[in-house]
Formats: sequence, structure tokens, C-alpha cells
Amino acid sequence: MSRAYNFCAGPATLPESVLQQAREEMLDWRGTGMSVMEMSHRSDEFVEIAENAEQDLRELAGISDDYAVLFMQGGASSQFSAIPLNLLGDKSSADYVNTGIWSKKAIAEAKRFGDVQVVASAEASGFASIPDVADWQTNPDAAYLHYTPNETIGGLEFDFIPETGSVPLVADMSSTMLSRPMDFSRFGLIYAGAQKNIGPSGLVVVIVRKDLLGKARKEAPTMLNYQVIADNGSMYNTPATYSWYLAGLVFKWLKAQGGVEAMGRINERKARKLYDFIDTSDFYANPIEPRFRSWMNVPFTLADDALNGDFLKGADARGLLNLKGHRSVGGMRASIYNAMPEAGVDALIHYMAEFAKERG
Amino acid sequence: MSRAYNFCAGPATLPESVLQQAREEMLDWRGTGMSVMEMSHRSDEFVEIAENAEQDLRELAGISDDYAVLFMQGGASSQFSAIPLNLLGDKSSADYVNTGIWSKKAIAEAKRFGDVQVVASAEASGFASIPDVADWQTNPDAAYLHYTPNETIGGLEFDFIPETGSVPLVADMSSTMLSRPMDFSRFGLIYAGAQKNIGPSGLVVVIVRKDLLGKARKEAPTMLNYQVIADNGSMYNTPATYSWYLAGLVFKWLKAQGGVEAMGRINERKARKLYDFIDTSDFYANPIEPRFRSWMNVPFTLADDALNGDFLKGADARGLLNLKGHRSVGGMRASIYNAMPEAGVDALIHYMAEFAKERG
Repeated sequence: MSRAYNFCAGPATLPESVLQQAREEMLDWRGTGMSVMEMSHRSDEFVEIAENAEQDLRELAGISDDYAVLFMQGGASSQFSAIPLNLLGDKSSADYVNTGIWSKKAIAEAKRFGDVQVVASAEASGFASIPDVADWQTNPDAAYLHYTPNETIGGLEFDFIPETGSVPLVADMSSTMLSRPMDFSRFGLIYAGAQKNIGPSGLVVVIVRKDLLGKARKEAPTMLNYQVIADNGSMYNTPATYSWYLAGLVFKWLKAQGGVEAMGRINERKARKLYDFIDTSDFYANPIEPRFRSWMNVPFTLADDALNGDFLKGADARGLLNLKGHRSVGGMRASIYNAMPEAGVDALIHYMAEFAKERG
Repeated sequence: MSRAYNFCAGPATLPESVLQQAREEMLDWRGTGMSVMEMSHRSDEFVEIAENAEQDLRELAGISDDYAVLFMQGGASSQFSAIPLNLLGDKSSADYVNTGIWSKKAIAEAKRFGDVQVVASAEASGFASIPDVADWQTNPDAAYLHYTPNETIGGLEFDFIPETGSVPLVADMSSTMLSRPMDFSRFGLIYAGAQKNIGPSGLVVVIVRKDLLGKARKEAPTMLNYQVIADNGSMYNTPATYSWYLAGLVFKWLKAQGGVEAMGRINERKARKLYDFIDTSDFYANPIEPRFRSWMNVPFTLADDALNGDFLKGADARGLLNLKGHRSVGGMRASIYNAMPEAGVDALIHYMAEFAKERG
């Protein structure tokens, strides 16, 4: 078939032009006679690729020199351990906000390394709303406060950055990174698994304020020690070079689209279209409080779960792929990251309308 | 330029046919309308790719069902931590053999987690020979014995598998994996960073005897816990899917070449040619005891170090790339992994002869 519209939550669709460039350069990067994946990570060529990617990311996200940008391995899940191992320091506890499944995973892992206070939870709302900040039981002496700006599975997204005073703010941005403008100077550390808005899986980007480095616990594996990774330009060992290169191509593509300001406008429009359609329909529903609906991951249910199978079959036949919701939530989920063209959202809405008319 | 002969120690050259297939499938894997790197790791398509890769690796290496095969992230360097964290269990110490730079790195990291006994060292020979097994001061109650069958930097390779009785044998096979037949049933655990003989960086293959699972220390990060990774088919989190796919293509290529028996014959011939040439030359030298010379990494020096720059420049001009030795050793190093064609070794020898004649 031709290129499908792939609504997978991650690994996710990539810009077609990025894949085309990767294809063209696969056997010979710019006359070197080598694929990027065959290059020494210490070669001039790869170092240039790596540095360009970092520079483009800094420009796109507006990251100052006060921050180190790390290209690590092991996914966001490895960061669930790395964060307490590196940031607890001599503090006795850290604050966590629970807004869904990914928050819970981060909390469970952090508890293995220190005292974790869940200072706010969306559980009472069925994970359909962000708890009012006025009610958060934060600890001014916490080592950091961790939250999940966008819950990939639940489709619950913060529309604000929490104010934590002198407590460093730590955020799992895996599914929202670079999807809209954000003031990164508000954060102590952010991390993002690449396989949603950045590139292929096997790479996790960590952006950490330099004054937070150097406090790793002695039992931290060296490969999870931010100071070591920063001191070595993310090349303490061989990094995931090909994923890094592809992330660089995605960053270039984002700049060509007009950066995160332009992406934010497009993403808001894509999301609004889809939610508006869902809200005006009697057949589809989304449970999230409108203000906190994710721009990136749109879960929705059909009026009758017995029709789910037929809905998915029809979608597949039209090249609208991977719409099945996460097993913990059920129903459907359309992930509409940066690389999902607006035409893909239009095609999805068109099919949803058609299906509702025929089967609703 | 056309494809060069790339002698890089890793990331390293890959079979051209593998890169060609990856190129062809880049935008659309078998009519799915998706690149493999855009596929959900839980999709039927990717699960098939992943399982085929594991099955092919098991066939190639003769791995029985007594072993779990894990596709992890973080490189061999992460395993330097994972091994003591998982295998020390209730034992008080582990034995390590020091044969060079990679052994030393494994030793340094293990010391952070437990009591390490260096039971043999090649230091007295200037890392030019493997210490006689009769002199190893092994501990019959060690949690495991760790060694490095092939030192990528020094070019020192074991031509035997040490006998350790009931003590599990653990081996860093990053640069020798699948290069020759080996009796894997002799090992408790082997690991190999992919970027030499398996595929792109960002993937590390771990093969572990199942009875060694389930002993992880409570402070082990979950992503380094072999039991968790094994229980989840290496998909506890999103694995490095594209690297896994490429490894699968390399395994298929290896099978088509005749498997590790055929590769062993070819690799021995390639290595012998190069060492024979070095030994018959007055201009080039390799310091390793012949019996323990690596089939994969061939370090050599020129009679006059002042000529190194010119040698490398001439090599580059002929498309013989990345021959510069590791900074800790100096001189040259030709890494001649599985994917380096015999014609590449012939071209290197031809150039070396020419250079020695003109400049020697």
C-alpha cells in the first residue's frame, strides 16, 4: 500500500520526508561511502551530526546554556530510576503528581530508591481532570517535584506548568515534547522517549539544569549518572547513533515547518477538530475535562463496545492504522503527534462520521 | 564515493545487502504502509520481526531453551552494572579476568556493587598474552567468573573457553559474537553490544541461563533486571525496535552465508592473511602472542610512528577507512568483523605493501 495514516501512540509515524532522506542516505552518507549507522561515534562526521541535532533541539525548544542536553538509551522507563538516583541527593523525599498510568510507573520505580510523596492525584476524577493546584500537598523541602505533562494512555494533558518555587520541577515529556511552545526555563529536568515526537525508539532525550548534576547516589549505575553522561557529551559509551541522526532529521523538519510555534498552532487545530467532532456526535465520547484534553493522544469510545472490532477493521481497510485504545482504557485512541498530517485527522473524522451514520 | 571498506571497531560496517533491504523497506514494510521504526512494538508485524530475530540468533549460535535471549538497551557498558546487580545474589564476591581495557571497565563498574577478585591479569605480558589458566586464583564460591573473550582495543582473543566448574561463566562477547562457532552451553551469561557483529548501536543482546534469573538486588533499576526483561519478552518498555529489526536482517544474512561455521572459516582466513603479511614485513608489527591474536581486531604499528599520518591519508584516499588505532594503544587497527568482505582485507594488504615499499 502507499503510506498509511498511522495513529500509533509510539513508536509512531515519522515525517515522510525524514524517512525519504534516511532512505537516500542509507548506504552512503554524503559521499563518505558509509551509512550513518556504520560510522564511528567519534568520527568528525558523526560528531557533526550529533552536535547539529543538539543545536537544533536547543533552538527549537529555547534551551539555554544553563542546561545539559543528553542523548541517552533505555527509554523513559530507565529515567524513572535515574531521576531519584541522581536528584534525591541528601534530601529525604521527592514529590510526585499522579495523573495516570505513566505517573504511576514513575512513582512505583522512585519508591524503590527513596521516600515518595504523592502530593496530588487525579484518581478521584477517574483521571479525567488535573487536581486543583491549590489542593496539592507539596513539600517545600522535596528534592524535586515530578509530573507527567501529558498522559499518553489516558489523554490527560496539563495546560499549565506548575509553580514549585525553589523545588526543581521534573517532567516526563515523552508524548508532548516539541508539540507546542513551552517555557523550558521553568524546569529542572525534562525527559522524553524519542519514539513519539522525536524519532525512533532506543533514544531518550534528557535536558537537565547543570546545577542539578553531580549529586548521583553512589549505587547509581554509571550509565545512569547524568554527570558522567554530560561530561562525555553523551558518548561515555557508544550512543544510539542512528536514532540520534534520525532525531536530528526530525529537528530539521520541525524547523522547516516553522518550529514549535507553528506546530502548536497546527496541533491545536488538529486536536480541536477531532474533539469538536466527538463532542457533536452522539456516537463517540471522550471523558476528559475539555481544558485538559491532550493535543497528542485522543482516546474515544463508541456508543457500543461491540462495534469496536468492526470500527477497527473498517479503519484498517482505509489505511487508518493503530486506533485501538490501550488495553487498560479500552475503546480507541488516535495519537496525532507532530508528524501526523492534518489530512490524516480529516480522513479519520470522515471515516468516524461515515461509521457512525451506518452503524450508530 | 561508492561503498568504502570501513575498518571501524564499532559502530562498524554492515553487510551491503542488509542496508539495501533496509533502504527498500524504509517507507513501507511489506505493504503495511509503515516503516518498521513506526510500528508499535506490540503489533503482530513487529512481534513477528522480533521473534524471527530471536529464533535465527538461537539457531545460529545454538542456544537452547535453557537460556533466555534478551534484546536490551544501553550497550555493554550498562551490562557492566547489570551483571553484578543481577548475579551476585547472596554471594559475597565475583571473579574477574583482566585482559585489557574492556575487562578493566567491567571490573571498575562491578567493584561499585560488590567484592571483585581479579583472579588473573594479562598486565605482566603487556596485554599480549592470556595468563596460563593453571595460575588463575579462582574462588570456587564466586558468584560468577567474568572475562572478555576478545579485547576490541588490544586485539587479544581467547582461543579457548575457560573451565569454571559450577561457577557461572560470564563473557563480554561484543566484538566476537557470531564470528566463529562456540559452545554457548558453557556459559551462564553472555552479552554483546550490537554495533560490531550484530547491527547498529543502541542494542545489546544478553543470553542468560534461566536458572540465574530472579536474584536481582533490590536496588537494581527495573530496566536492568533480567527477570523483568525476560518475563516481558524484552518489551517491558519500548525496545529499540529498528535496531532489533536490523539485527534480524544481519542474522538472516549470516544464515545465508552458511552460519557461524562458514563465518569462522572466512574470518580465520581473513585474519591469517593479514597477520601473515604483518609477520613477513619488516615495516609492520603486531605485539600479540600468535595463538591469542584476535580474528576481529588487528592492531598493528608502522616502523616509524611519524609515518602514521601519511599512512592514514593514503588509506582514506583509497576508501580504506577508520584504520587509526585506539588512542590508548596508538598505531593502527583494522577491525575485520563478519561484514568486512575478504576483498577488503586484500585491498588493505595491497595498500600496506605498497606503502611499505614506497616509504619503508
